[in-house]
Amino acid sequence: MRLGFRHIRSISSYHCRISIPRSLHRSFSTTTMAASEVNKTAHSFDKARFEALLNRRFFYAPAFEIYGGIGVAGLYDYGPPGSSLQANIIAEWRKHFIIEEHMLELDTTIMTPASVFETSGHVARFADWMVKDTKTGDVLRADHLVGGVLEARLAGDKEARGLAAAPPAPDDKKKKKKGAKAAAVKLDDEVVKEYESILAQLDNYSGLELGELCRTYALRNPDTDNEVGEPQQFNLMFASSIGPTGQHPGENQFLKLPTNLSYLRPETAQGHFLNFSRLLEFNNGRIPFASAQIGRSFRNEISPRAGLLRVREFTMAEIEHYVDPEDKSHERFDEVRDIVLTLLQKSVQESGNNGTIRMSVGDAVAKGIIANETLGYFIARIYQFLLKIGINPARLRFRQHMKNEMAHYAADCWDAEIQNSTGWTECVGCADRAAYDLSVHSARTGHPLVVRQALKEPIVTEKEVPEWNKKALGKTFKGDAGVVQKLVEALEEPELLKLKGELLQGATVIKSEDGKEFQLTPELLTIERKVFKQSIREYTPNVIEPSFGLGRILYTLLEHSFWAREQDVERGVLSLPSVVAPTKVLIVPLSAREEFAPLVQEVSSKLRRAGVFSRVDDSNTSIGKRYARNDELGTPFGITVDFASVQNRTMTLRERDTTDQRIGTIDEVIATVVELVNGSIDWNAACARLPAYDGVQAVE
Amino acid sequence: MRLGFRHIRSISSYHCRISIPRSLHRSFSTTTMAASEVNKTAHSFDKARFEALLNRRFFYAPAFEIYGGIGVAGLYDYGPPGSSLQANIIAEWRKHFIIEEHMLELDTTIMTPASVFETSGHVARFADWMVKDTKTGDVLRADHLVGGVLEARLAGDKEARGLAAAPPAPDDKKKKKKGAKAAAVKLDDEVVKEYESILAQLDNYSGLELGELCRTYALRNPDTDNEVGEPQQFNLMFASSIGPTGQHPGENQFLKLPTNLSYLRPETAQGHFLNFSRLLEFNNGRIPFASAQIGRSFRNEISPRAGLLRVREFTMAEIEHYVDPEDKSHERFDEVRDIVLTLLQKSVQESGNNGTIRMSVGDAVAKGIIANETLGYFIARIYQFLLKIGINPARLRFRQHMKNEMAHYAADCWDAEIQNSTGWTECVGCADRAAYDLSVHSARTGHPLVVRQALKEPIVTEKEVPEWNKKALGKTFKGDAGVVQKLVEALEEPELLKLKGELLQGATVIKSEDGKEFQLTPELLTIERKVFKQSIREYTPNVIEPSFGLGRILYTLLEHSFWAREQDVERGVLSLPSVVAPTKVLIVPLSAREEFAPLVQEVSSKLRRAGVFSRVDDSNTSIGKRYARNDELGTPFGITVDFASVQNRTMTLRERDTTDQRIGTIDEVIATVVELVNGSIDWNAACARLPAYDGVQAVE
Repeated sequence: MRLGFRHIRSISSYHCRISIPRSLHRSFSTTTMAASEVNKTAHSFDKARFEALLNRRFFYAPAFEIYGGIGVAGLYDYGPPGSSLQANIIAEWRKHFIIEEHMLELDTTIMTPASVFETSGHVARFADWMVKDTKTGDVLRADHLVGGVLEARLAGDKEARGLAAAPPAPDDKKKKKKGAKAAAVKLDDEVVKEYESILAQLDNYSGLELGELCRTYALRNPDTDNEVGEPQQFNLMFASSIGPTGQHPGENQFLKLPTNLSYLRPETAQGHFLNFSRLLEFNNGRIPFASAQIGRSFRNEISPRAGLLRVREFTMAEIEHYVDPEDKSHERFDEVRDIVLTLLQKSVQESGNNGTIRMSVGDAVAKGIIANETLGYFIARIYQFLLKIGINPARLRFRQHMKNEMAHYAADCWDAEIQNSTGWTECVGCADRAAYDLSVHSARTGHPLVVRQALKEPIVTEKEVPEWNKKALGKTFKGDAGVVQKLVEALEEPELLKLKGELLQGATVIKSEDGKEFQLTPELLTIERKVFKQSIREYTPNVIEPSFGLGRILYTLLEHSFWAREQDVERGVLSLPSVVAPTKVLIVPLSAREEFAPLVQEVSSKLRRAGVFSRVDDSNTSIGKRYARNDELGTPFGITVDFASVQNRTMTLRERDTTDQRIGTIDEVIATVVELVNGSIDWNAACARLPAYDGVQAVE
Repeated sequence: MRLGFRHIRSISSYHCRISIPRSLHRSFSTTTMAASEVNKTAHSFDKARFEALLNRRFFYAPAFEIYGGIGVAGLYDYGPPGSSLQANIIAEWRKHFIIEEHMLELDTTIMTPASVFETSGHVARFADWMVKDTKTGDVLRADHLVGGVLEARLAGDKEARGLAAAPPAPDDKKKKKKGAKAAAVKLDDEVVKEYESILAQLDNYSGLELGELCRTYALRNPDTDNEVGEPQQFNLMFASSIGPTGQHPGENQFLKLPTNLSYLRPETAQGHFLNFSRLLEFNNGRIPFASAQIGRSFRNEISPRAGLLRVREFTMAEIEHYVDPEDKSHERFDEVRDIVLTLLQKSVQESGNNGTIRMSVGDAVAKGIIANETLGYFIARIYQFLLKIGINPARLRFRQHMKNEMAHYAADCWDAEIQNSTGWTECVGCADRAAYDLSVHSARTGHPLVVRQALKEPIVTEKEVPEWNKKALGKTFKGDAGVVQKLVEALEEPELLKLKGELLQGATVIKSEDGKEFQLTPELLTIERKVFKQSIREYTPNVIEPSFGLGRILYTLLEHSFWAREQDVERGVLSLPSVVAPTKVLIVPLSAREEFAPLVQEVSSKLRRAGVFSRVDDSNTSIGKRYARNDELGTPFGITVDFASVQNRTMTLRERDTTDQRIGTIDEVIATVVELVNGSIDWNAACARLPAYDGVQAVE
């Protein structure tokens, strides 16, 4: 289960080669480090070189670059290695969740009529507060402005007090900044306290309060030093319009908004909920089960600036697990019970701290820290998945949402946060959304989104029921017949019993609210005691929702995988696990000469048949340079085809992180590399099979 | 290569069981049929039952169904089997194209600034003509209205003449109808000819001409019998807006339209072209190579009605293959040279016919029917792919675009058309787009999208060049210096030689277009003969573009796979090849009793380890019903776990199309089914290994 990361770490403790790159130690041996050590690791990360590598090797790049890119911030194109890395992460996600847990996969539309998001609450509430620069009209996110300016002032204060201005706080929650470089001005101790208190609560302020803060503390646009206007709400959904304009407005009973107003989904979840009945039927009416969807979503961020961490178009993977609200146990919980996680609880945060605890999922659920087994199960499964693809567990924590951060209907919510050069970033959310979503869509459309469960023991009840003589009723009361019926049927059991007695005595009178009187007789109705047998329990299931931002995971994974060899700091290495590496094996013929072609062909097709994705690099540069290029692409293994291969049918096998090289026959090397890629052996085992390569090449 | 379809057909000719369902013959033994026979097959297709099956099993369903669905036609959600089928088709596509051909995969954004589509021509030309009902305001597609009404009148004429009104023409091109049921009125022979001629040219009319046709032939909205207005252009791209309004309009030099106007891409292609330079660099500057992308695209169809065949949101898979315009040979062409295709040439269509020929790709290229080897290579590869996933080759043809159907810049274009119950539908386009796309983006942005090729033999040329004394030039002519320079540099070689002679004689005069005269002297310039050596050839590559509409392929594949057993016509069977079937193996325990659980677990995990996707169905119905449900889901193999399995460790293996059952030990059956799914053996071979099951079950 923990193959990914553990596999990489094990590489750094090989015994078959002595010189292990120190940087590898720094990057990957962090599990046992103290927290301070971890931070040091983070700071030794060379972001400029890292970004240059990603750009040089076209992992991703700003979209529409040749069009100047302006006006389209927050949009990125993935190049070949980025696309493959993403495809491999998705393939692993599918295996880990959909296949392993027999989830029902969906692929629903992005384009969504406005009424759906009206129901879900997105039209009213999926918004950020923005302020405008009063002179330039530049638009800023209000909370980022407040956070950024106050942080800059605090940094200026530290500088003035002779304390080194601290490196950017590693907590993303406090980093909502904009611009941010203030003069070294000392602040009153009182003011420092005020600022710190504001920063800690930044997520809780309303638009009005953010505007108040801007006035009270004279917060200005740091780029221009101009004043800003009152905060306005900006809905983060992209709007569009379906079909030609003027098409049947109001034709659909469910649509209050113009028929063709639509939004691009900001999450895939609503597509699951709307199909709940079909999914339940597909699952033979049984519960619990989960639906899963991988797809593009869109958020019209006010001013995206943080690379892949805050974008306007992104790929998500979402699970909606439907569960009986009265039984949130999980049948496979025992499998994850002992997994130990780093938890940041809401109570700790609410008291203004961010200290984490290490605790097993089993204990966390038993102590009520995590609300229920199913939520705990998914948190643990998320943890396993992230480790499998190569996330450093020492830089992964689960942060619980605070009370006022969470939607009112949610029962509990935890974010998997991954530490990176910008701080701690939410990469996966895992929420117990209770019955909210299914209930609101059901109420709006009248379509029941419920589970009907056959009860083993029917529930038997008895009650008094009025039995009407409809004909006589109509004749007696005409237009008021309905009113009379309603009056009687609204009566509670004791009143019905009283009425029953009166009717047995003869006639009686019932009064409507507006004082009208109706005489009731046994000819019109009798009250009878009846037995009711309820054999079906009908309920709205609760939803546990793990929701993955794949771009953020991909980016943090790249950061965690990056290091550089001491002898060649200009070039980097991406120590991606085989399971997600864009290319698993690089085949390097000594040159593009024809005599190597048949062997290259043979190796390449044998690997393909074994399901291992390889690439050939026969470009006109040295073997060393070709390997270095592929270290940057994260290719874990390299095979060299040289004259010895032609003469003796031997090849060398190179491991990326150690640059260790072994030698063997063509078939031995292929068999070994296939097992390495599949994870059935590690490099130590490979070294036991194949002798070290002594570096002597057969010559022409 | 042709595993998919051939594999299925081979099932119908098994010898290990005698009773072969007749319907299977009808559906799948069409390769050797005459054309008339094929049509008969198409007509025996029971569309109502087919659609009921897809709906019942949730292959796909109209999106927002519980919201009434109105106003959002053309949007569909894929349920679990549809999603898996799509994911498997995509996985196979990736293998067949991206991996096999070492293409560079991309994942670019859907949201695209307007200026990009302004350059590509989509803003001006990606539109359909629509007309409005003058009374109801209903919107109709103009060509569909014209085609539909004229066809209905022709059908009425046939009826009046006592000829049976023909079944709907199987040619999609002529089926642009709307409404369509006219009274049985005989028409003049002249009028019939006119109508037929109009229908044949329906794709060529301008909006003006379509309006003219509506007036001349009194064409009305068939739903209301109201007149329609003048045709108006309706752009098919969905518009949106990036960022908060009022953001920096006109800030970007490339944007003529408002900065934040954007469109959802109607194809993925532009994302490839804009990244061309990065892709070329990634490929070490070498050409030819191809980029590939699988992703969502959007088209705001005026009135989509044809299910998955015409939708507003769809998944595409597109390849852009970049090639030297002077050498469109393909190094792997020999591998496909002998593949025989059904071709419908443009010359045939232009003469008003639709007769196809059968010809090898090699011959078609040699005879100039297909423009070049690279185009021919991809057409053949498309053919192989479609067969592999299960498309019936007898219902697949390649139709060449007619002259005026094709964009002016395109060199040649062929559509893979697949026959289905609505006619022939374009499912894949394969075009030689010449240098158009790269040229226009390059011209608009000034960013060169070219290949720079080192020439083995530099090209040496000599020419006369003016050499300026810039200082003297400025002193003499001041503001006019530039004008003078331009005048001289615009001169052709003979004029330059004349000027050279005159300068050698002393001064001379040159006139600007507006008649201004400038005196030139040897102090200002001399003309010298210089040698130029060109060692780099710079050119814009041509693009061959295979473009796949995955939804259309998925839908036609489902139609081709559908049939029903004679003894149970209410339930259908989907004979999907294993390679794309949503589930490969169904595991059916006799009941949900606990004693079967360990075996089910064992089989399930052994299959998973072998990479075979299985599902367990332990629901509370008979084994027969559970198999029937999975026949509808296209699951090719079933394994029954019963008391014999517990007692003797034997299981039965069932094949979907024949319902044939074999028996063997657990490990034998697993090994056999793994090979069946991987395609390394067929059912005949499986029958040779495993004895027939005699139907006697071990009892409790």
